[in-house]
Amino acid sequence: MRISDLSRESGVPIPTVKFYLREGLLPPGQRTARNQATYDERHLRRLHLVRTLAEVGGLSLESIRRVLNALARPDWPLHEVLAVAHTALRRDETSSDPSLPAARLEIDTWIARRGWNLAPGTPAADDVAETLVALRRLGWDAGPEIFDRYAEHADAIAEAEIAYVAETNDPESAVEATVIGTVLFGRALASLRLLAQEHHSRKRFGP
Amino acid sequence: MRISDLSRESGVPIPTVKFYLREGLLPPGQRTARNQATYDERHLRRLHLVRTLAEVGGLSLESIRRVLNALARPDWPLHEVLAVAHTALRRDETSSDPSLPAARLEIDTWIARRGWNLAPGTPAADDVAETLVALRRLGWDAGPEIFDRYAEHADAIAEAEIAYVAETNDPESAVEATVIGTVLFGRALASLRLLAQEHHSRKRFGP
Repeated sequence: MRISDLSRESGVPIPTVKFYLREGLLPPGQRTARNQATYDERHLRRLHLVRTLAEVGGLSLESIRRVLNALARPDWPLHEVLAVAHTALRRDETSSDPSLPAARLEIDTWIARRGWNLAPGTPAADDVAETLVALRRLGWDAGPEIFDRYAEHADAIAEAEIAYVAETNDPESAVEATVIGTVLFGRALASLRLLAQEHHSRKRFGP
Repeated sequence: MRISDLSRESGVPIPTVKFYLREGLLPPGQRTARNQATYDERHLRRLHLVRTLAEVGGLSLESIRRVLNALARPDWPLHEVLAVAHTALRRDETSSDPSLPAARLEIDTWIARRGWNLAPGTPAADDVAETLVALRRLGWDAGPEIFDRYAEHADAIAEAEIAYVAETNDPESAVEATVIGTVLFGRALASLRLLAQEHHSRKRFGP
């Protein structure tokens, strides 16, 4: 198909498709004439993925590039791919609160007590520590145990997710499922929590 | 305390404190001289809250303003406050995918089957519908049931959260707990899922 077909099928405007091609987020098509190229289903699929990571995941171009690099390495161990996807999902700002290092140690001890085996310096643990610091700044007299219930649900969810990926035989699909799953089901979980909060709030306090 | 004390205690730079005062995110202090005012613990607490909503929640100034308006109305029913907090948390972009309205109907039917009682047009349901559309664009042959497991965990989490708020006697604290809880524990849950994914991935695929 031509670039105009690619645009129509994907809903991505032609200038954006050209931009993705220039930036290397989309591999070049097969050259058919000096100024023409044809594209196939793989291009369309990649275009959908880039759009999803940008629109649904809210990822920056640089983060999308990192995720696509992971997809290009289906020989990587899956937990390496996961680490790339996780890093891409993070916002870059880090808090400079002076009580953060101590909170991080508390979170590390709590993680070890849960039996979670993580790479040292995992960035998501910093995010949990920042949340603890923020709660305390707001006057909550909280330790890491305040997250116990959330951690139990997160553990059950993640165990099922990784089991699903493990059933995928072809490495390329497994890597793609990991990236898509991390971004899209993360968004779904957040929205479903809000819906469930609304339901339980109406049930308890509603008219 | 003076504005310089407020800045030192909160870690928020003086120009930012002045900006919040001008924007009305922070109520004016008690005037002591033509160009001086004193501030108290309530100002410090509010400053921490604004900073947390901005830094941890990633909320825009306009969203923070909406949340603070909800805090100023402790007589509101809690599910109204929740609705304000939820709206503030959403990103503003909405997808224009032509298959979105049909997906939204599927999600509404699925929600009704779950027994969740929600206000019509709840924005978080649009987010779930968008996620379904995005999965299908990427070639997943999925119906709303793909979210069943997430919805069950979300339901258990939300039920405990609303029960916690219901135990809070003073309406002002209940409203604050709702806003803080929605933002901060939402962030914690997302990070804990990533940590749990890493743990289960290493357990299965790791060295």
